[in-house]
Amino acid sequence: MGQVSDLFAPETVAIVGATDREGAVGQAILDNLLADFDGDVVPINPGHDELMGQRCYPDVASAPPIDLAIVVVPPPAVLETLEALGEAGTTEVVVITAGFAETGGEGAARERELQAVADEYGLNVVGPNSLGIMSLPVGLNATFGPDRPDSGSISFMSQSGAFITAVLDWATDQALGFRDVVSLGNKTVLDETDFVREWGNDPDTDVVIGYLEAIDDGRAFIDTAREVAQETPIVLVKSGRTDAGAKAASSHTGAIAGSEAAYETGLEQAGVLRANSVQELFDYARALAGLPVPDADGVAVVTNAGGPGVLTTDAIGDSALEMADFTDETIAELESVLPDAANVYNPIDALGDAPAERFAAALEIALADPNVGSAVVVSAPTAVLEYDRLAEVVIESQEAGDTPIVTCMMGGERARAAETVLREFGIPNYFDPARAISGLDALARYREIRSRDPDPPTAFDVDRDRAREILERAEGRAGNRLGVESMDLLEAYGIPTPDGEVVDDREAARDVAASIDGDVVMKIVSPDISHKSDIGGVRVGVADDEVGDAYEDLVSRAYAYQPDATVLGVQIQAMVDLETSTETIVGMSRDPQFGPLLLFGLGGIFVEILEDTALRVAPIGEDEAEAMVDEIDAAPLLRGARGRDPADVDAVVETIQRLSQLVTDFPAILELDVNPLVVGPDGVQAIDLRLTVDTDTL
Amino acid sequence: MGQVSDLFAPETVAIVGATDREGAVGQAILDNLLADFDGDVVPINPGHDELMGQRCYPDVASAPPIDLAIVVVPPPAVLETLEALGEAGTTEVVVITAGFAETGGEGAARERELQAVADEYGLNVVGPNSLGIMSLPVGLNATFGPDRPDSGSISFMSQSGAFITAVLDWATDQALGFRDVVSLGNKTVLDETDFVREWGNDPDTDVVIGYLEAIDDGRAFIDTAREVAQETPIVLVKSGRTDAGAKAASSHTGAIAGSEAAYETGLEQAGVLRANSVQELFDYARALAGLPVPDADGVAVVTNAGGPGVLTTDAIGDSALEMADFTDETIAELESVLPDAANVYNPIDALGDAPAERFAAALEIALADPNVGSAVVVSAPTAVLEYDRLAEVVIESQEAGDTPIVTCMMGGERARAAETVLREFGIPNYFDPARAISGLDALARYREIRSRDPDPPTAFDVDRDRAREILERAEGRAGNRLGVESMDLLEAYGIPTPDGEVVDDREAARDVAASIDGDVVMKIVSPDISHKSDIGGVRVGVADDEVGDAYEDLVSRAYAYQPDATVLGVQIQAMVDLETSTETIVGMSRDPQFGPLLLFGLGGIFVEILEDTALRVAPIGEDEAEAMVDEIDAAPLLRGARGRDPADVDAVVETIQRLSQLVTDFPAILELDVNPLVVGPDGVQAIDLRLTVDTDTL
Repeated sequence: MGQVSDLFAPETVAIVGATDREGAVGQAILDNLLADFDGDVVPINPGHDELMGQRCYPDVASAPPIDLAIVVVPPPAVLETLEALGEAGTTEVVVITAGFAETGGEGAARERELQAVADEYGLNVVGPNSLGIMSLPVGLNATFGPDRPDSGSISFMSQSGAFITAVLDWATDQALGFRDVVSLGNKTVLDETDFVREWGNDPDTDVVIGYLEAIDDGRAFIDTAREVAQETPIVLVKSGRTDAGAKAASSHTGAIAGSEAAYETGLEQAGVLRANSVQELFDYARALAGLPVPDADGVAVVTNAGGPGVLTTDAIGDSALEMADFTDETIAELESVLPDAANVYNPIDALGDAPAERFAAALEIALADPNVGSAVVVSAPTAVLEYDRLAEVVIESQEAGDTPIVTCMMGGERARAAETVLREFGIPNYFDPARAISGLDALARYREIRSRDPDPPTAFDVDRDRAREILERAEGRAGNRLGVESMDLLEAYGIPTPDGEVVDDREAARDVAASIDGDVVMKIVSPDISHKSDIGGVRVGVADDEVGDAYEDLVSRAYAYQPDATVLGVQIQAMVDLETSTETIVGMSRDPQFGPLLLFGLGGIFVEILEDTALRVAPIGEDEAEAMVDEIDAAPLLRGARGRDPADVDAVVETIQRLSQLVTDFPAILELDVNPLVVGPDGVQAIDLRLTVDTDTL
Repeated sequence: MGQVSDLFAPETVAIVGATDREGAVGQAILDNLLADFDGDVVPINPGHDELMGQRCYPDVASAPPIDLAIVVVPPPAVLETLEALGEAGTTEVVVITAGFAETGGEGAARERELQAVADEYGLNVVGPNSLGIMSLPVGLNATFGPDRPDSGSISFMSQSGAFITAVLDWATDQALGFRDVVSLGNKTVLDETDFVREWGNDPDTDVVIGYLEAIDDGRAFIDTAREVAQETPIVLVKSGRTDAGAKAASSHTGAIAGSEAAYETGLEQAGVLRANSVQELFDYARALAGLPVPDADGVAVVTNAGGPGVLTTDAIGDSALEMADFTDETIAELESVLPDAANVYNPIDALGDAPAERFAAALEIALADPNVGSAVVVSAPTAVLEYDRLAEVVIESQEAGDTPIVTCMMGGERARAAETVLREFGIPNYFDPARAISGLDALARYREIRSRDPDPPTAFDVDRDRAREILERAEGRAGNRLGVESMDLLEAYGIPTPDGEVVDDREAARDVAASIDGDVVMKIVSPDISHKSDIGGVRVGVADDEVGDAYEDLVSRAYAYQPDATVLGVQIQAMVDLETSTETIVGMSRDPQFGPLLLFGLGGIFVEILEDTALRVAPIGEDEAEAMVDEIDAAPLLRGARGRDPADVDAVVETIQRLSQLVTDFPAILELDVNPLVVGPDGVQAIDLRLTVDTDTL
């Protein structure tokens, strides 16, 4: 593929399938293009010599050189059109035509062919089944949908064309300005990752926003978005969050329903600000596009209205922000300029008789406080407060420094007028204090994202060949499952396991038990028996002289439960001191979009009933592994709450990383659970293991 | 007090302190009153014979009979004005004048006098420190603030005058109509409970909304609101939700910071729909004022836009609602009227080329489905969809039946025009699907509230006199605390405790232990030692022949820890089987606003680290006690998760109710904890007890 950026800076745009038939897509696009595009528009249609005043060419071959082609021909003609474009040296193509994978069998085959043609000619294809694209700086509206919105610094992609139509119509009312807009369509060639990368490299895009129903290659997206987010904030609505929503998304775009947990984790790791509603998407976008990033979490509130001031304070309490704690100097200065009855502590209540100048004085003092990272001006309409003048005050304060300010000028007409002025200077105004704070919160969250510098994954010294040999054993096993007999897989990756081994006769059982200090634990080992305890297949605290009988008993229980079971033997394991230790779970399941999803939690009810777990897409480094341990609600238990000895959290963190390395090294491991991983004050021990291996891809 | 409703239906309104001085409060109110009020306006001011064309009277005594008096005289003159009004037989008074409790010492004294005068004459006083009141049906705007909004069916109270000013100015733009509006001010006489009661009795109020920073008498509020909510929904913003917000509220109105947990619980029990932002308040109010209450939770979504349809589905997944599951008949009918490519399963995607008529057909079929309780129409603008026509379709569908419909017509100008029409018929339109669903969700939540019929508290047969005797022992104790030596308090209220007693010599210890089957637990009993375990003051599993030595050891440990400790003795208790049982906590703390707040949770880390607790304001009946047990996250543990024997939950539920009765019978109990209450398959046993008693009020 060439530079995706060429899509957005064409000098000549062709419409293959242009027409002047009223109501036709080819006519609508031609009309939109002719309206404002700075460059040349070339209609292509063998049935016309001229269309809407433009010379029309019969085919691509006879047309002048084309920088960008918009394809609206019927589905069967799309492939030959792409070939013709490829032959003519045009690489930037938007396929509007629908009737591909979204329509099932035949369409899906056509879409695969489209991909092959694109690969052959190195075409950058948007779509098929796209509403089109826009590039506002050059006046390009190559869509059959909405009017062109204002030009601005937000670049916008959407997997739903209707979403673009709905939003742009409204955005014009809201004075939201865009740079590039892309309707992604079926994403056969170019997808969300390509546009994130493109806009990350574009100095004129201040914010990337998007509506997505699926991310096809989660890992690639994370890697790209992480890098881009260092410079450019990314805000996404990823719909299908709920079970019902995922079902609806799947029926809408045929998106494979990846797990919401994986998206939540993956987007967080990618440094994406996730919006849960259309309003949040644009509240965040507006703040990020117009305002500097704050350098502290403290917010100063300046108001003439006690009640709304309290509401604003509540909203700050709900957010990642905090009420700025003013210095003594700030308090003293505020006291010197405000009336006696005013509140000089945050929220600053300048009182109901405050004119704009009193706001100005309070704001200037607050902004000079080192604990103030951002400010919000909250006002109720009064007889003495001129909203236009207050807007000027805020704009002057904003321009004078690097501290972001948002406003919540409440009220009707007069607030609307002030809002229009504020927007020209990038300052968002909201009716609701909660929304004003949500905008500032997005800035603070982006500051945290921009400051991230995650550790690279540690490369532990492991025995990869040995691990592969063990994984190969899964071939032919029921469900390609391995169990406790494969604990040496963990050992090959340096994860400690108790002394012991799997034996398949009574004598060996006694010998192994004798070699282990103290009593032992004995477990039946069978790929057919996954819930060993339920059939009495686990014996704890077996003395050496009882080991032989216990062996026979366990084996006969297994056959009694399932006469044709494959019994691999009995595992003899050293006892673990459960008094001083805690059961945890580490595991992995492979997500269709994001790949290996690591899980950590405390064992038993904590995972199963309280669902207190931490997830990350592997591979991860030390800091992310540590964050997994810290983010579970029950983490204080490991850290030594309630008089317990602190567990060896470092050993847990290392185990998570080693597991991350194992599942990254072997994509054939489809799922894996170490349950429990017992953690004591002096380290960890993996007690049980289950995994499923795709031996075909090993 | 008379009927509060007289406040809102006066024929003659006097303004005591009226003036024509520009900028004065007395002038602003006179101006607002003269603008639209249907009745007579009587200015009172000794310095004028006439004001703004009205005859002005020198004092109350010389004025004609007054139904409602608005008082704006200076603070020192307020009391004599109220007395004069009382003498003249006027009972309805709004005191605008500020300078009372909100200003501290002298003002607080004046406020107490105001209360005394009001009591003496039976005055219904709003304020002081009020912005005023409005009654829109009679054109009454007795405020010095905003213009009169439209007349409607929402009655609105606010503890912040600025909040009223901010909201009403905006509400006019939004075509939100009001019936009565009250600025509560300092709430010296009339408070939120009075207005909830008043508007609950008013057939023309469809929704009660409010902004509150504190509720003074939580119990009275719960009782009144519960009754009113059976007929009239109540939506409140209670600010000061967060720690920072509570601090700000306290500095604003001097509201005593009751705990947010108590407000959350109390408002929920009261059947109040709590809004967390201004936007939610009015989104809920609009839906509740304009739409019927749905009779099922299933929502039908009809759209022409796949992406917005998915977003709507997500919003439903986030709410108390669910996607309606269409019957086979519905599916078949939808198939017969919609194009083949349309999605006939919910969300119904009528496709991008759908005209309003196709929406109408789909909507009619969906509304006839018995699983559909409400519907949302979601549309993106297209060339073929006329929004005005779609609005008509929705209005016709709404009028034809009892199913509430909301719309999310996305887009700019054309959506705005349709919205205006829809609002006239009470149908809210939103740009964001999430907000549309939030409106429907409020209706569904109100349906649940209206259907509530909580059990009355059970009156258990208890020994109240015995309990009083035990509580009296707290007098003179350090901190008025009682402990494990007072377990007979629980017994007096029928809460089981293990066999045992408190002894104060070695011999008695041996005798008691001998009378108990098996080993015993021994605990030091001292009001000075609250964490017994920390000083080695608890011995578990003591055999009968070790009891004497253990007694001596425990007592000497107590004196070693604190030489001047009051040691009441040693408790000897039967052992409880902790293998088959679960530790829980039941407790109570007394909230300044809501009174006795009951708590239930599992013991140890569940309460202390995971904060997994359920709260209720006492007294409660059986169903609410049961709900407390079920609402903790760890409830499945008690119900028999993970192969455990189910605990005797009925015994827990009964214990909670008995505790509810105890703390209701004795308001002198300030806090009480039974920790642990051990629950096994065959009942409960209270193992330890701590409480604090206000012996002065016993």
